[in-house]
Amino acid sequence: MEEIKIFCPATIANVSCGFDVLGLALDSVGDVMIVRKTTEKGIRITKIIGQDLPLETEKNVSGVAGLALLEKSDYDGGFEIEIDKRIKPGSGIGSSAASSAGAVWAMNELLGKPFSNLELVQFAMQGEKLASDVAHADNVAPAIYGGFTLVRSYDPLDIISIPTPSELYATVIHPQIEVKTSDSRKILKTTISLEKGIQQWGNLGGLIAGLFQSDYDLIGRSLHDNIVEPIRSILIPAFDDIKANALKAGALGSGISGSGPSIFALSKGEENAKQVAQSMRETYQPIGIDFDIHISKINAQGVKKIA
Amino acid sequence: MEEIKIFCPATIANVSCGFDVLGLALDSVGDVMIVRKTTEKGIRITKIIGQDLPLETEKNVSGVAGLALLEKSDYDGGFEIEIDKRIKPGSGIGSSAASSAGAVWAMNELLGKPFSNLELVQFAMQGEKLASDVAHADNVAPAIYGGFTLVRSYDPLDIISIPTPSELYATVIHPQIEVKTSDSRKILKTTISLEKGIQQWGNLGGLIAGLFQSDYDLIGRSLHDNIVEPIRSILIPAFDDIKANALKAGALGSGISGSGPSIFALSKGEENAKQVAQSMRETYQPIGIDFDIHISKINAQGVKKIA
Repeated sequence: MEEIKIFCPATIANVSCGFDVLGLALDSVGDVMIVRKTTEKGIRITKIIGQDLPLETEKNVSGVAGLALLEKSDYDGGFEIEIDKRIKPGSGIGSSAASSAGAVWAMNELLGKPFSNLELVQFAMQGEKLASDVAHADNVAPAIYGGFTLVRSYDPLDIISIPTPSELYATVIHPQIEVKTSDSRKILKTTISLEKGIQQWGNLGGLIAGLFQSDYDLIGRSLHDNIVEPIRSILIPAFDDIKANALKAGALGSGISGSGPSIFALSKGEENAKQVAQSMRETYQPIGIDFDIHISKINAQGVKKIA
Repeated sequence: MEEIKIFCPATIANVSCGFDVLGLALDSVGDVMIVRKTTEKGIRITKIIGQDLPLETEKNVSGVAGLALLEKSDYDGGFEIEIDKRIKPGSGIGSSAASSAGAVWAMNELLGKPFSNLELVQFAMQGEKLASDVAHADNVAPAIYGGFTLVRSYDPLDIISIPTPSELYATVIHPQIEVKTSDSRKILKTTISLEKGIQQWGNLGGLIAGLFQSDYDLIGRSLHDNIVEPIRSILIPAFDDIKANALKAGALGSGISGSGPSIFALSKGEENAKQVAQSMRETYQPIGIDFDIHISKINAQGVKKIA
């Protein structure tokens, strides 16, 4: 295979009580990339449509992630990358992760899969480092593994695939305001109360159990975050209303996607996800801030070949 | 049925990263109780062997738990209780919980099971309140449900049964020193760093996933507690050596049982649990403090009828 066309999913990180550890991949929101082998060494970004992003390899997250892979590979050629960028940068649904994860996943396919998923995550994390100064795995892990992933530890990197209940859907609203990841990190407190910590790990345990058992009610009961959400949500206009109305519309739970500004809700079934989308639309329309709404099944597969 | 003889399991609470939320039941360590219906109202403790504990209903944890059940019942008789107390009070393996849980479980059987397991836990928690001033569920939940239980929330009380891998064994050493629960609570800090919190919920997520998948290696990788164990372990002589040697002997992980002084280790298979017991014995013998060592399969059933 000399060329591959792939779908690179958007992802939701910091799934409520899973702050900094739990992420999930979306199925109908993502970028499209074409990656092809070249005899010339190195990586060239030949085309980006949809967004104004740098073509220079060293300044582009897919370029940097790809270089990390090439460095560990005995392949003596290079790659060209074309990106149809459909996920808006800064939306909080893993725009940079989709490009980083997509690039290394595609290269691995073209080289006959010499690398494991865990290694691909490590390469893609270099793209994340370029994008946000932190080589985090919260988005690239679900983008590569698919479904829900738990980043149990960074040292050593340990990623656990968590099963995805078949009727689980996400609805995401992206208010088109800018919240810098660095700002949303800055306002976090460095200490928390032990009491809230206990609630958080109790809820994360419940959420993991709910995902394993396809227990939608337990998933809903566990989707709480009393630590980060109350602080970060002040940066997101109408967060409390969006969440309250999503729950009223029947969502299992709702929270901040990544570091925002997107807000996600999880639902049992597509019908409910559409009702939640409607509630989000009605809540946001009067505010006067532009927004996108996405409805998607959870993507159990991660990055995938489409041609 | 007018009378029932039961086995009431010892339990391990605060299973490493599951501080205050995750407990498990043992299979070969526990008390034996006989509970019988009486026409006389109320509850009488008629006999306690093995330990010097109060016979007065209001001062005995099984009496108090039983009264909480009677209060919610339309039964117009009473119960007599005999206790063969084999779990030493203050050992950190749920001595009071075994009596509280056993009493209400037996009464529920004798009354034709009018109450759910969740209700039985609520009654038994009144016994825990008498024993330690805190109506916690960490030990009574696994004693009643069996296996591993997650106390996701107290308000409302939400208890999740977690599957138990079939080859999982626990080894417990009980150094015969007194560590008061109130002291071991007092030395805890009320705040923790967000960073350690994230590690803790990452590990708890991994542990729950490992239990669902019978992934012993993942269970082992997840059995860490960087928050409570480093503080409480200073009250337990030779804790670090016991733990290090248990891991050297092949244990999956090791930590403080409840609030101590007992130390537990988990193993894959009975053979390894015996090797771990041997390492504990060799570590403690030179110290000059008396100790008991228990080896037990995880008990998936909880309190059970034995006659």
